[in-house]
Amino acid sequence: MNFPSKLIENAVNEISRLPGIGKKTALRLVLHLLKQKENTTIELADSLIALRTKVRYCQVCHNVAEGEICDICKSHRRDKSIICVVEDLPDVMAIENTGQFQGLYHILGGVISPIQGVGPDDLKIESLIKRVFESQSSGEAVQEVILALPATMEGDTTAFFITRRLKETGIKVSTIARGIPVGGELEYTDEVTLGRSILTRVNYSLD
Amino acid sequence: MNFPSKLIENAVNEISRLPGIGKKTALRLVLHLLKQKENTTIELADSLIALRTKVRYCQVCHNVAEGEICDICKSHRRDKSIICVVEDLPDVMAIENTGQFQGLYHILGGVISPIQGVGPDDLKIESLIKRVFESQSSGEAVQEVILALPATMEGDTTAFFITRRLKETGIKVSTIARGIPVGGELEYTDEVTLGRSILTRVNYSLD
Repeated sequence: MNFPSKLIENAVNEISRLPGIGKKTALRLVLHLLKQKENTTIELADSLIALRTKVRYCQVCHNVAEGEICDICKSHRRDKSIICVVEDLPDVMAIENTGQFQGLYHILGGVISPIQGVGPDDLKIESLIKRVFESQSSGEAVQEVILALPATMEGDTTAFFITRRLKETGIKVSTIARGIPVGGELEYTDEVTLGRSILTRVNYSLD
Repeated sequence: MNFPSKLIENAVNEISRLPGIGKKTALRLVLHLLKQKENTTIELADSLIALRTKVRYCQVCHNVAEGEICDICKSHRRDKSIICVVEDLPDVMAIENTGQFQGLYHILGGVISPIQGVGPDDLKIESLIKRVFESQSSGEAVQEVILALPATMEGDTTAFFITRRLKETGIKVSTIARGIPVGGELEYTDEVTLGRSILTRVNYSLD
């Protein structure tokens, strides 16, 4: 692509480094910004710089935070005896949106993936183990760790690794249920999911 | 969507104001930036601010320029007797990429669209008429105006309006050929295009 101006070329190059955005889309965004008021672009740029330079991570659960500890860890309303382990930030947001979980989180920052060169040491696994151990000598011992990891080989490997490491703490380790989504039809469910949903059936309750 | 941090929320809101980018995509981009080096975000933001605050428009053809006059208008190699009228910047880039046009451009900044409230005064039409008139009293008179406008009702309206305004200058006004694209098959071409391509047939040349 030949650009009529070095400024446009630079902006297109920078924008197209974002995932899922090619040169054509980047050019479209650049032309859009050029047609908007100067403030639109300045506010966008400022919000990006503020985001990247001011965001801190919670020292306990590695969630994003504005101070040292995130709002969830700080809250007195949350149940400190349960920790839900997730891969990344969007998972926390998804679970928070359900309103079904009142415990704390622990964000690994990824899952173990030998192919992508991600080992246990690249993730916040040690910090989880330490957190559980330290809670046991304090007044608020962690009773249960829920693994809410992706249903992939990498997720399963990570779950296995964490469960083994947590064994000596003696606490309960659970994993979120795999099965047919609510509203899903049996005949269109893949056989692995359907098979698992039969194996992990739960008692039917009339309550 | 509930955000774990005001900084993330701001950035997502700003990014999702861009066309074609929703909140989910914006969040994905934000999380991507958070995982990259701080410099990636700062360079992106700087390029956007530089783009928006430093880009100038050519006083002659309204193309983007870094000074008062754009590189195409400044060039001594371009044929100053032909002006190609286009809707916007990407059209200039597309035509330049063909390597088939050596004249100058005139960027209208849109097309006449009563539905979207765009009238002739919102576009650089007067400036085109003035440009052609002024060239006639100078040494380098414009001989031809090529209309390279979109093949839509708005494009046709704009072409009609410009042609009528240019009538008294007495110069040649042409429009780019509509027809079957190179490599296109007759049976899959819509009837309007096919019909026009028969009406506007050109002499077959053996050269």
